[in-house]
Amino acid sequence: MPKRIDHEKRRKQIAEAAWRVILERGMEGATVRNIAEEAELSLGALRHYFSTQDELLVYAMKLVKEKAAARINEIALQDLPPKEKILNILLEIVPTDDETRAEMEVWFAFTAYFRHKETVYDAQHDGIFIAMRKLIDYLDQFHLLQNHLDKEIETEKLYALIDGLALHAMLEPERVNKKRIERVLIQHLHSICADE
Amino acid sequence: MPKRIDHEKRRKQIAEAAWRVILERGMEGATVRNIAEEAELSLGALRHYFSTQDELLVYAMKLVKEKAAARINEIALQDLPPKEKILNILLEIVPTDDETRAEMEVWFAFTAYFRHKETVYDAQHDGIFIAMRKLIDYLDQFHLLQNHLDKEIETEKLYALIDGLALHAMLEPERVNKKRIERVLIQHLHSICADE
Repeated sequence: MPKRIDHEKRRKQIAEAAWRVILERGMEGATVRNIAEEAELSLGALRHYFSTQDELLVYAMKLVKEKAAARINEIALQDLPPKEKILNILLEIVPTDDETRAEMEVWFAFTAYFRHKETVYDAQHDGIFIAMRKLIDYLDQFHLLQNHLDKEIETEKLYALIDGLALHAMLEPERVNKKRIERVLIQHLHSICADE
Repeated sequence: MPKRIDHEKRRKQIAEAAWRVILERGMEGATVRNIAEEAELSLGALRHYFSTQDELLVYAMKLVKEKAAARINEIALQDLPPKEKILNILLEIVPTDDETRAEMEVWFAFTAYFRHKETVYDAQHDGIFIAMRKLIDYLDQFHLLQNHLDKEIETEKLYALIDGLALHAMLEPERVNKKRIERVLIQHLHSICADE
């Protein structure tokens, strides 16, 4: 058992080294050699944990996704008024600090890199569209969504808004800072919710 | 004079060859060698027009931007009711056909590639944020914008919505098709405009 745990722990450390390399040098710099160096491992040792570069990168991306999902689930379980809960979840998806901006960088670099490798690429990989549908349904269950709205279109709109904000928070972090993101999201929730 | 024109024409042809290479193989495949082959030129001949790979790629990106700006200006000059004009402009920015989706692919690949080259990268390069501010001001001038809205936040929101839709139209063209994009944009304009 301890061996198995060590193996997984080491894979995580390597994935984290891969993130750091991607953040610093972009995907062009994310070679197995550079990642091994960052993780302070020999090439041979790294190959023991990941046999190919793509296997390593797919795992590193999966970890980004799991970290975000864990943060979202934690908020979902909190005892909060529905609108506040939704705002907090959205603020976990749009990057508002260095750590989450780094995750977005990795997502962006990864998506650009794997886009032309059809065997690996899956547009739906981040599950955000489905999460947005659940949030709209959740508002509706609590009779908070304005009656005349089309839930399908509101899901698509919220999804585009969130990913657009995430993209801009990564590209222009000074203008698109936490306060501004919060104001846009509060305004959006206000625009789709019924008066209480 | 004719020589100068030929030179510019040839640079455009090379840039278009670069787009095709990026679309097919991604940025990793956009080497000077591959672009020369696609343009049916020798490496030496290509170097006559562009001395470095980055110079070529920056020019190819500039051309994408100019093509989009030309389409937007054409609509801006048309004699249309304000809301219809704005909808048509937004539909030129979000990719809804193969040609504009290809432009978005080039933008995406280019942004990912140049992000870690600070001398070249400029987050504001596409001018879309400024264009969105103008559209919101335009609605306001015609007293079409709801009174209580904060124009700064509405600009940021429209900008995020447009870029999010553009990203999803590129990544998931089947779901995020022209009809769906149109419905989201019409719904959005409806949500920020005063009743007429």
